[in-house]
Amino acid sequence: MTDRWDEVRDVDRRNSLGVTAPKGFWAGAAAAGVRDGQAGRTDIAILYSEVPAAAAGMFTTNRVRAAAVEATEARIRQQRRLQAVVVNSGNANACTGEQGAADVLTMQVLTADLFGLDAGDIGVASTGVIGVPLPMDRVSKGIEEAAKKIRDDGGRAFAEAILTTDTYPKEAVRQIEVDGRPVAIGGAAKGSGMIHPNMATMLAFLTTDAAVDPVFLQEALRRAVDASFHCISVDGDTSTNDTVLLLANGMAGNRPLTPEHPEWDVFVGALTETAVDLAKAIARDGEGATRLIEAAVEGAGSAEDARRIAKAVIGSSLVKTAVYGADPNWGRILCAAGYAGVPFDPSRTDIYIGDVCVCRGGAAVPFDEEAARRVLRGDPVPLRLVVGEGAGRAVAWGCDLTERYIEINAHYRT
Amino acid sequence: MTDRWDEVRDVDRRNSLGVTAPKGFWAGAAAAGVRDGQAGRTDIAILYSEVPAAAAGMFTTNRVRAAAVEATEARIRQQRRLQAVVVNSGNANACTGEQGAADVLTMQVLTADLFGLDAGDIGVASTGVIGVPLPMDRVSKGIEEAAKKIRDDGGRAFAEAILTTDTYPKEAVRQIEVDGRPVAIGGAAKGSGMIHPNMATMLAFLTTDAAVDPVFLQEALRRAVDASFHCISVDGDTSTNDTVLLLANGMAGNRPLTPEHPEWDVFVGALTETAVDLAKAIARDGEGATRLIEAAVEGAGSAEDARRIAKAVIGSSLVKTAVYGADPNWGRILCAAGYAGVPFDPSRTDIYIGDVCVCRGGAAVPFDEEAARRVLRGDPVPLRLVVGEGAGRAVAWGCDLTERYIEINAHYRT
Repeated sequence: MTDRWDEVRDVDRRNSLGVTAPKGFWAGAAAAGVRDGQAGRTDIAILYSEVPAAAAGMFTTNRVRAAAVEATEARIRQQRRLQAVVVNSGNANACTGEQGAADVLTMQVLTADLFGLDAGDIGVASTGVIGVPLPMDRVSKGIEEAAKKIRDDGGRAFAEAILTTDTYPKEAVRQIEVDGRPVAIGGAAKGSGMIHPNMATMLAFLTTDAAVDPVFLQEALRRAVDASFHCISVDGDTSTNDTVLLLANGMAGNRPLTPEHPEWDVFVGALTETAVDLAKAIARDGEGATRLIEAAVEGAGSAEDARRIAKAVIGSSLVKTAVYGADPNWGRILCAAGYAGVPFDPSRTDIYIGDVCVCRGGAAVPFDEEAARRVLRGDPVPLRLVVGEGAGRAVAWGCDLTERYIEINAHYRT
Repeated sequence: MTDRWDEVRDVDRRNSLGVTAPKGFWAGAAAAGVRDGQAGRTDIAILYSEVPAAAAGMFTTNRVRAAAVEATEARIRQQRRLQAVVVNSGNANACTGEQGAADVLTMQVLTADLFGLDAGDIGVASTGVIGVPLPMDRVSKGIEEAAKKIRDDGGRAFAEAILTTDTYPKEAVRQIEVDGRPVAIGGAAKGSGMIHPNMATMLAFLTTDAAVDPVFLQEALRRAVDASFHCISVDGDTSTNDTVLLLANGMAGNRPLTPEHPEWDVFVGALTETAVDLAKAIARDGEGATRLIEAAVEGAGSAEDARRIAKAVIGSSLVKTAVYGADPNWGRILCAAGYAGVPFDPSRTDIYIGDVCVCRGGAAVPFDEEAARRVLRGDPVPLRLVVGEGAGRAVAWGCDLTERYIEINAHYRT
């Protein structure tokens, strides 16, 4: 591990290790042609750990759940352990009935055989069109090929193969020390833009070589996701396939982390930072988006209240179109805060666009409109609401809403 | 009353009476120039009843509430009675602090003086830009002029003066018999599209000459609104000014309606139909919309469950853009149902686009794609979800999402 990090002093290069930055993680990808007519693009990805890894996962709350979501969640609940994950893009394998469930099992068995593992050690994730059975002949060949191609620096290949309408790969890496040993956290994600022809899907994969007590790994993941992926929205549509997986293989050699460990908070903090990096990348790359909106809320009654207000602001079509048009319509921001379902006093609320105060005590103040427009034309666009004197604060991330979003989603198949 | 209806056999003409269809209701409007630079357009409207009317109201749930909303809700709670309503468009009088509250009182006093009433008998509603004080000199002159122009067939003038970005006036009328006497219900509304430069606002005014026990009038309104205005969405943004008022002046001469009256359900049914007409008109006229989407859900565990699923479907940006692009992406519909927060079994769900079954048991079925596209290109667009064997059913109305929506809201001021 230390060797790897000593080698990789260049930050770009380090980030490109993504999920393979932590010790003992390998990844590879193949172009299987899961998407018809896009044969040149990679669409099968495998993540592999040299040793069994403690595993935690969070999955879509949609009642309609893809076959891979059902299978992987069941696995993690049962044994809190995985050693490899196989992912396909281009087909969500959702609303595919018993055939869909059988295909997931086939993917697990195939991958397990190639690595000499048990099918139960394999996590699966899918993203793409809904309601169409997987082309299993191509998927099977793709898995074989991807397995051959895995490398201990294959993170970028993995990050690219899981993309759909994303415009760039999304990776993040953090390094901390636990028990005096270097620990790495890596991650890759795909964006929540909608994909041909159906659905937004968010997938994220986090790896660490830290040893973490499996019972508490889920708690660490929950805290990281609450402050990252749960704070973004592109279009308010919760997909059938959303999956966040965290694998901790212990190869850093630290004492297993639990909440009692003095560096538990350091670990959870770094994990959260990694997840926030990926979440912001997803928000910025929302379909048709031109910039990232960062809404910070202070002075709320609780962090949860602040988060709900921040999410209402970045979720509002009115706010999103105003940012796109560089229009400092603070009334739209205050209105969105008002329907967040959280108690606060609008008459004690101040709003800032960048450093420009555009609303004080819930009412208009004279402000430099051109300065506010400049902020709105920048990227990211920082919005700040001070809603009272409480201790609750939070940040949420979204993107602007443009004609391109409509084009992508209305006219993709026609 | 009978005379009026005998005169007005022509349906268009009858509907054009709108809020003045019931006996004893008068209305008028004036062009006061509340909107700068649109001096020719009417923007002050007055609705007047010859006798005091029992009044019920429902108001925005936004924490940020316009001054008129606060004042009118307080009045109705206190006395359940109004005799006139004054409305301005072009300015929401929201986020305007104490000046805003004082301006509402001025509007009430002015209107009351002109009709020899008490200020407490006057309801007020506003719609338009947020955070800008009302131009009270122009508003005052407008109220005087509108009061001079009231007529017992002034409904259309009223319906036109309350519009903002709406493309047509929205009126509805129903006639029933109660105690063997003809009873009329009239209504006018403005759409929930966003308006320059800030905010969606929905205003609706319902009138009836039925005598209704004031205590139960609110209950009748709640039932009507639940099945109409609460079942539409244009963009998910709840305004600071939403107001629905119902005035019942008793001039039909029936025994006062209560839930014990044998024709209570007939009255509530007709009131609901009137409200549904207005709600559908608002949904169809959503900003940038080209057609009405009507999502019917059957087989849910309860009517409320069905309503939540139907609202999730018509609220989904994915469904809205698919309809715009005439793309029969049923996966988007099922996905939206899945995140409605309601228990149902996706594997027992069928979906229809018009008469075309596009999904059976939560999975793909072969279907005539061109036939489905034809339905999606029509207006309205009927979608139907059968989600199980329960008795719960509901309908919700929305509109497609187009590039024009973005243009209107991103580039209106720039």
